[in-house]
Amino acid sequence: MGTESKWGLSSSWFRRRISLGFVICFVALGAINPMAEARVRRYKWEVSYQLKSPDCFKKVTVAINGNTPGPTILAQQGDTVVVELKNSLLTENVAIHWHGIRQIGTPWADGTEGVTQCPIMPGDTHVYKFVVDRPGTYLYHAHYGMQREAGLYGSIRVSVPDGVVEPFSYDEDRSLILADWWHKSTYEQAAGLSSIPFVWVNEPESLLIQGRGRFNCPSLLGGPSTSTDTGVCNTTNPECSPYVLTVVPGKTYRLRIASLTSLSALSFQIQGHNMTVVEADGHYVEPVVVQTLYIYSGETYSVVVKADQDPTRNYWVSTNVVSRPPKTAPGLAVFNYYPNHPRRIPPTAPPPAPAWNDTRSRLAQSRSIRARRGHILPPPAAADKTLLFLNTQNKIEGYNRWSINNVSFTLPHTPYLIALKQNLSGAFDPAPPPETYDYAKYNIYEVAPNTNASYGDGVYRLEFNSTVDVVLQNANTMNPENSETHPWHLHGHDFWVLGYGEGKFDPAKDPTTFNLADPIMKNTVPLHPYGWTALRFLADNPGAWAFHCHIEAHFYLGMGVVFAEGVDRVGRLPNSIYGCGAAPKQ
Amino acid sequence: MGTESKWGLSSSWFRRRISLGFVICFVALGAINPMAEARVRRYKWEVSYQLKSPDCFKKVTVAINGNTPGPTILAQQGDTVVVELKNSLLTENVAIHWHGIRQIGTPWADGTEGVTQCPIMPGDTHVYKFVVDRPGTYLYHAHYGMQREAGLYGSIRVSVPDGVVEPFSYDEDRSLILADWWHKSTYEQAAGLSSIPFVWVNEPESLLIQGRGRFNCPSLLGGPSTSTDTGVCNTTNPECSPYVLTVVPGKTYRLRIASLTSLSALSFQIQGHNMTVVEADGHYVEPVVVQTLYIYSGETYSVVVKADQDPTRNYWVSTNVVSRPPKTAPGLAVFNYYPNHPRRIPPTAPPPAPAWNDTRSRLAQSRSIRARRGHILPPPAAADKTLLFLNTQNKIEGYNRWSINNVSFTLPHTPYLIALKQNLSGAFDPAPPPETYDYAKYNIYEVAPNTNASYGDGVYRLEFNSTVDVVLQNANTMNPENSETHPWHLHGHDFWVLGYGEGKFDPAKDPTTFNLADPIMKNTVPLHPYGWTALRFLADNPGAWAFHCHIEAHFYLGMGVVFAEGVDRVGRLPNSIYGCGAAPKQ
Repeated sequence: MGTESKWGLSSSWFRRRISLGFVICFVALGAINPMAEARVRRYKWEVSYQLKSPDCFKKVTVAINGNTPGPTILAQQGDTVVVELKNSLLTENVAIHWHGIRQIGTPWADGTEGVTQCPIMPGDTHVYKFVVDRPGTYLYHAHYGMQREAGLYGSIRVSVPDGVVEPFSYDEDRSLILADWWHKSTYEQAAGLSSIPFVWVNEPESLLIQGRGRFNCPSLLGGPSTSTDTGVCNTTNPECSPYVLTVVPGKTYRLRIASLTSLSALSFQIQGHNMTVVEADGHYVEPVVVQTLYIYSGETYSVVVKADQDPTRNYWVSTNVVSRPPKTAPGLAVFNYYPNHPRRIPPTAPPPAPAWNDTRSRLAQSRSIRARRGHILPPPAAADKTLLFLNTQNKIEGYNRWSINNVSFTLPHTPYLIALKQNLSGAFDPAPPPETYDYAKYNIYEVAPNTNASYGDGVYRLEFNSTVDVVLQNANTMNPENSETHPWHLHGHDFWVLGYGEGKFDPAKDPTTFNLADPIMKNTVPLHPYGWTALRFLADNPGAWAFHCHIEAHFYLGMGVVFAEGVDRVGRLPNSIYGCGAAPKQ
Repeated sequence: MGTESKWGLSSSWFRRRISLGFVICFVALGAINPMAEARVRRYKWEVSYQLKSPDCFKKVTVAINGNTPGPTILAQQGDTVVVELKNSLLTENVAIHWHGIRQIGTPWADGTEGVTQCPIMPGDTHVYKFVVDRPGTYLYHAHYGMQREAGLYGSIRVSVPDGVVEPFSYDEDRSLILADWWHKSTYEQAAGLSSIPFVWVNEPESLLIQGRGRFNCPSLLGGPSTSTDTGVCNTTNPECSPYVLTVVPGKTYRLRIASLTSLSALSFQIQGHNMTVVEADGHYVEPVVVQTLYIYSGETYSVVVKADQDPTRNYWVSTNVVSRPPKTAPGLAVFNYYPNHPRRIPPTAPPPAPAWNDTRSRLAQSRSIRARRGHILPPPAAADKTLLFLNTQNKIEGYNRWSINNVSFTLPHTPYLIALKQNLSGAFDPAPPPETYDYAKYNIYEVAPNTNASYGDGVYRLEFNSTVDVVLQNANTMNPENSETHPWHLHGHDFWVLGYGEGKFDPAKDPTTFNLADPIMKNTVPLHPYGWTALRFLADNPGAWAFHCHIEAHFYLGMGVVFAEGVDRVGRLPNSIYGCGAAPKQ
């Protein structure tokens, strides 16, 4: 497909391989800077319950070393990161995923409970060890139950090797994680999602910027004493004072903006300032100037911002819910021009939020994100296999579920990586899940005549080193005239984003529109309402890898799949990932 | 000690042994009824989160087969109970203790996380198998973290063998569990208890009778939409309609009343009716007639009640908090005289609650509970070892804790039973904890001059078959003029209740007051404010056994110890209890 010949495929494919190999070789030999050497970055983390007031309402959170977000991991390309994680929760296990790190050669360190490891029990210490092989902006977060939503997340920032110059410049580098926040516990949410009648999580109580938001405490006035108690909701609590991003007039800032929302698609604005998008999920972007950045759960972007506005005042940083009718106040931080007081309220109201239902604008921005010239990694010209994934909301035995091709994913009791490597039978359904849906007949604009789906825990087994296309197809939910945004995240790989379309993907026609010239590579990509998104990736990373909607409740209720490739090439699995199901500790 | 000679000790001790052996022999041979045979009672349980409104306020509970309380286990003396427990929680492990069942020969089935087993992981199925060797009223409940408080509990009712006549008669047999209930999650409570500043659980939002209570929903009016929503607090929800105990005029009822409160000591009344106490913790009581029964967490009582009042109306069953200034509305149920409508509100107000601080009345009732004539199991006349346990509230590194002899208990990572049986070194502190405190100097009526304690996980190793006395000594808390009630529960044994005293126990004088004539045997006993309670037991059950305050927060914060005896006599530990710490699955 596309315009490249078979020869083009091979040559571009080899070019990519060679250039990657070259870089790795340089780093390994320290060729760029004889002083540079891959280092080991050691972290000791303790996961525990902490009462926190991120939005002024006090609730129990799951924190690392007492904090949420947890500590930022700072490393340089080629470094080995070692996180010694102690679970000090009371009755609850834990697992942490290193989002965007491909775990080449260490598929057991991906941190995905049920896929690559057993959960870590209270009292246990688990060591995650992996190489950060590419510079860029990454994340970590719990990947077990709905634990991420309890606050267990943070940033990973991987810098380029000494002597390597990035294709843009800035004076300072800052990280900002966006999140949505609820006052109900994740256990309560999970119970509601698994109930008949279905209890939806509803819209978040607040939006957090770098762990800080603001709930309207006075709205609780007159409530039970436990709620009106300023010990429970207190807008003067310093924990919920807005995050302050201090800038020096005239200087340029790289902001690494990431979203780990559980539900919300977001807009992000810095009042009165343009942002130039330069990186997405660890890949350089052909610069795009925006006033509003749309960002979906699991995505990371670097934007470059110059402090070039009136320096006598502060400005709002704001984030708003898009793609769902917003019921949540904007998340606000302060863009503080030094030497103004960091708590000085900006003199003008925050910028108006973009229309929540302006899907076209979001689609246009998605399409505008392309690989940066000089940094294009060309995709293979054609795929060996194409998977067409219909995204739907369904019912199974009266329960609300989300599904792919009418199969609603359930995590097996024994992690796939162990079951596949050990050839354990009975660990999951050996029948492969459906590779397509009845696209000829399906009307994506209407509620399906039969919304029933079935549970499944089968695996898509991919030929090692094959090229795989995935086309995500959106549809109507079980409510008339409603289609959701699904941010899809692939573990263990980056994919080329070949295109976004409106309406139903036509396998005969739409592939000709694929961008094979300068597609950005990402690990997370939105599927827009009533649209499609086409991806291509190389199944070149031995292991078992989740690919799922990054909305916590959607994945919990079945919106995901597992890919496996080259498991016979995986080295000896470490004992530490064992200890559950048919995989007792070795 | 006491009035019996050494000879008396031996003869009574042998009589007890012989009579017990006799009964067991009869049952085993089916001598009483040739048709009777020990049966296997099989239960299949699934533990899951459920949204429930036990007091009209909807919150997540941990339920068995969808319900809290869970199913009642009905068995006959000598039966084998097999519970196949599937953990269907999302991220949380589980363990269930069979409260009052001594687990003779099956110490691994006691269900005490950290003491007798590793916790059961989500997705796992664990089989508990044990013999119920004595008739009586028992309980089961989670024994992991603060999980019991989330609703994971139920009743065990063991009937006498066919042909055996109990020393009292009744027409019907009913079970009632009393509990206190909070709207905060147990995770949130645990986080507060482990925080600086300390966040206490506070008084319960409601009291439940057989899983039903009533919170004053209108008090939430004006609160956030999630609270005023009738979906969240709704007094017309049938789940929180009062429990109805229907009686037929003239008939006699055995009510098996148990308390599984997390904090509260309770009074229990049936408006206008006397109750005759006939059983306590599985032992027959010399009948005591009461209007108010005081009951402490972990205790069970059978009372006999005759429906002998005006049959044209209904009556209130009520329970109130005692021993702490009550801030919780009475728990109410309906004592419904058939054929009055079960929902017909009794025409008069519930009986007034007894004064919460009338310690003397409670002490008097505790003292009045004696073994029934003809069913006295005489204790050994003297102890081989006496442990004097000072109960205090303390500080450790700024954290609030509870302690015994200034040691605040922490559960080790590897269960004691496994560590002891396998001689694993490093699993817990090998130094024995203190057997006494400085009673000559300690002023139990004042806040200790130094409230600091230290953490400890050592074990009291008891000589097999030795007789052990434990004297629990209460004291002032860290607040002036305040002393708490602590209900102490012993696993794996019953103990003789030798006496209750006021003030400081004097080892030289007070043992002469011990009741060696007709002490009741129990597994749970209150320690009254500023008082002492003396117990005696035979260390004749090979295993490792918790002995702890049954207040969930007190045990969580260190108010407990572990006894071990005859571990070399314990049979091969089943694989199923392994899977944590230094005890990987075998």
